[in-house]
Amino acid sequence: MPVMTLMTDFGIKDGNVGVMKGVIWGICPSAQISDLSHMIQPQNVREAAYIFARSAPYFPKGTVHIVVIDPGVGTSRRPMAAQIGDWFYVGPDNGIITGLLERAQQEDWPIQFVELDQSRYWLPTISFVFHGRDIFSPVAACLASGVPLRELGTPFADPVRLQLPQPEETEHGWRGEVIHIDHFGNIGTNIRVEHLGRAMKQKENIIVHVNVMKIQGLVNTFGERPVGELIALLGSTGNLAISIVNGSAAQKLGTKVGEAVEVLYK
Amino acid sequence: MPVMTLMTDFGIKDGNVGVMKGVIWGICPSAQISDLSHMIQPQNVREAAYIFARSAPYFPKGTVHIVVIDPGVGTSRRPMAAQIGDWFYVGPDNGIITGLLERAQQEDWPIQFVELDQSRYWLPTISFVFHGRDIFSPVAACLASGVPLRELGTPFADPVRLQLPQPEETEHGWRGEVIHIDHFGNIGTNIRVEHLGRAMKQKENIIVHVNVMKIQGLVNTFGERPVGELIALLGSTGNLAISIVNGSAAQKLGTKVGEAVEVLYK
Amino acid sequence: MPVMTLMTDFGIKDGNVGVMKGVIWGICPSAQISDLSHMIQPQNVREAAYIFARSAPYFPKGTVHIVVIDPGVGTSRRPMAAQIGDWFYVGPDNGIITGLLERAQQEDWPIQFVELDQSRYWLPTISFVFHGRDIFSPVAACLASGVPLRELGTPFADPVRLQLPQPEETEHGWRGEVIHIDHFGNIGTNIRVEHLGRAMKQKENIIVHVNVMKIQGLVNTFGERPVGELIALLGSTGNLAISIVNGSAAQKLGTKVGEAVEVLYK
Repeated sequence: MPVMTLMTDFGIKDGNVGVMKGVIWGICPSAQISDLSHMIQPQNVREAAYIFARSAPYFPKGTVHIVVIDPGVGTSRRPMAAQIGDWFYVGPDNGIITGLLERAQQEDWPIQFVELDQSRYWLPTISFVFHGRDIFSPVAACLASGVPLRELGTPFADPVRLQLPQPEETEHGWRGEVIHIDHFGNIGTNIRVEHLGRAMKQKENIIVHVNVMKIQGLVNTFGERPVGELIALLGSTGNLAISIVNGSAAQKLGTKVGEAVEVLYK
Repeated sequence: MPVMTLMTDFGIKDGNVGVMKGVIWGICPSAQISDLSHMIQPQNVREAAYIFARSAPYFPKGTVHIVVIDPGVGTSRRPMAAQIGDWFYVGPDNGIITGLLERAQQEDWPIQFVELDQSRYWLPTISFVFHGRDIFSPVAACLASGVPLRELGTPFADPVRLQLPQPEETEHGWRGEVIHIDHFGNIGTNIRVEHLGRAMKQKENIIVHVNVMKIQGLVNTFGERPVGELIALLGSTGNLAISIVNGSAAQKLGTKVGEAVEVLYK
Repeated sequence: MPVMTLMTDFGIKDGNVGVMKGVIWGICPSAQISDLSHMIQPQNVREAAYIFARSAPYFPKGTVHIVVIDPGVGTSRRPMAAQIGDWFYVGPDNGIITGLLERAQQEDWPIQFVELDQSRYWLPTISFVFHGRDIFSPVAACLASGVPLRELGTPFADPVRLQLPQPEETEHGWRGEVIHIDHFGNIGTNIRVEHLGRAMKQKENIIVHVNVMKIQGLVNTFGERPVGELIALLGSTGNLAISIVNGSAAQKLGTKVGEAVEVLYK
C-alpha cells in the first residue's frame, strides 16, 4: 500500500485537508495517508523545510510527501515534483526541500526534479488559489500509483533554495540560533551533534547561553533533573535543545525563533 | 477500499473521534477514513452545511460522509441516512445537507432519504448523548460495506432544510453577506462566480465593499499584489472572498460571519 | 487489516505523530491507524488513563494502542507492552493502563505484561527523548503484524498503577470529584451510573452540587432543556456530567479538574 504524507499551513477547521485526501483516494484508493502537520505558521516556508527534513526520512522507501505552504500559488512560481533519495516531494518550488536536499547531496542520494506541466494528471478544473487540491494531490496520487516522475513534467536542475542560518564555530565553541519552538515549548537550535563532535565526550563541560540564561552541562533526557529545571540536551534528531523539565522553556524565557544561542566549552 | 469522512464539533482532545473510527473498522475493516473537520463551532449546523457542500463532491463516488453536529441528540430529531448524487450522508436530520441538496436538485442528481430505525445495524447499547458512536458510525460502516440504503431505515421525503442567506441582485451589482472565516482569516461570502457572470470579464471594474473598506478590482490570486494589501478574489470553490496578502483580513477588519458585503460594477 | 491507535501529548504541529506512522507503515504496511488524542495536557498521565480506559474497548479485538505520555522517557522507567482483554497496549509503564486494568480484573479478562528489552524489534538508533518513535512504534507494528507479545520482552507482574480518586458513599448520596473537562466544557465526574444504582429510577429526585450551584434532577440529554440551562446527566460512557445546553459549563462555573461534586438523594 503506497504511503503519502500531507503538510500544509491550512489548519484543521475548514475541510481543505480532507478534500485533498478525497482527491487522492479517487486516483489511488489504497494510499495510506499521514498528516505531518497542518499547523505550519501561515506562509512560513522555513518552518516547513525544517520539519520536512527531519521527518521525511522516517517514512518507507517510495513515500510521496505533499507539502503545500504556497504563498505564490497561481503566480509564476513552479509547481514541482522531485525524487530525493528514497522519497518523493510534490509541491511548490519555493525552498521547502532545502534541508533534505542538503542531506541528499552530502550522502550522494539520487536527486531528480520536474516542473509539473502535464495537465492530464491534474483535476479537470484548476483554481488560482488551491493547487494543493487541483494539481499537487492528483499528481502525487499518480506518483504513488506508479506513474514515473519524468512523465509528470519537464526536468530542471535549479530548485529554489532557502538560505538557512548556519551556526558558526567560535574560538571556544559555536554560535547558532533558535530555529524551532515545539508544542511543549522546547527550544530547538541549529547547532547539531556533529558540530559539538568530541566535546560531547565531556558533556558536563558544555555551557549553553540563551537569552540571559546560562546552562552548565548537557543532560541526556528530561527525567535526570527535577521538575522546573532549565536543561540543555540533544533533541530526537540531533539538534541542541533547551528545555524546562515538564515545563515550557520558550514561555519561561520568552524565546523566539531567530534568537542567538551560544555554546562554550569550559 | 470504501472511503468515508467524519465531520463533527467534537474537537480533537477527548478521543471521541477516534472511538468512531474504532466502531467503523470493527464493521468495515478496510475503510479509508478522512477527517473533514472536528473544529466546527459547537452546534453550528450552518457552518457544517457550508463546509459539507463544498467538500463532499471532491470525494470518490460512493463515499459515505458522517456528520455529527447534533444539538438535538437523543430527542425526537430524526437520525437519517441519504444518497445525494454520488455520495452518502449519515447524521442527524437538522439541515446539514441543505447546500449539497440544493445543488443536487439543480443538477438533477438522484436523491433518497431514510429515517434510521433498524436498530440491528446499531451498537447493542445506545447512549442518549453520543449517537455519532452508537448509531451513525455503525450505520455508515454498513453502508460502506454494501448494505443498501433502504435496509437501514424508512424512506421519507421532507428533510429539514436551513434558510441559508441568499445574495440579492441590486441596481448596480449584488448584496450578500459573510458566511465563513477560514484559518487564514480569509473572508468568504455567499456571492458566487455565477452571480457575477459577465462582469467577471472586466474584473478591474468590480468594486467590493466590506465594513468601511472599498476594494477596486478582483485579482486572480494572492501573489499578484504586495504583502499586506487588501484584495478581493474568487475562492477555490467559486465564492467571492476578501483577503489580505499573507495576512488575516478578518482580524484586520474585525469582520464576523453575517456582516454585509456589497459588489458594485463601475 | 490490523488496527492501531495513537495517543500522545505531542500536539499536532511538529510532525512527530506523523513520523510514528511512517515508522509503523514501514513495518506493517496495511495498519489502519486512528489518532485518539494528541492534545493530552503535557505529562498528564491521569488524563490519558481516563481517556484510554473509556476509548480502548470500542476498538476491534486485537487493536494495538500506543500511548506516549512519557515524562520519564530515557530514564529507568520500564518500556512495556501488555495484553488487556482483547486489546494490546504499548508505551511507558507509568500508570496509563490503570483504569482499563481495573475493569479487566473486575471482568476477569486475560492480562499479560512484558518489559520491552528485545532491541531487535526497535529502530537501529534509539534517542534518549523519543521512544514513541524509536521503541514503541516499531514494537507495536510488530505486534500488529503478528509477533507474539512474549517475544517482545520479559514478563512481569507489577505494572505501575495510579491512585485514581474514588467517589465515597455518604449518608444521603455520593461525594466525588471532577476528572475531565471536555472540548464543549462538559464537566465529567468520577461518580458513575453504577454508584447511583436504584436512585436512577427516580432521576428527578437526584440533586447535584458543583461549585456553589445546585442542580435538581438528572435529564437524559441536552435537548430536553432550553439553551443556556445548567443540567446534570450521564455522559456517553456512564459518568455523571454537568453541562450547559449549547454552552460551556466549565467556563460558566469556572470549574477545574479535582474539584468536589456531591450527589444527594432527596
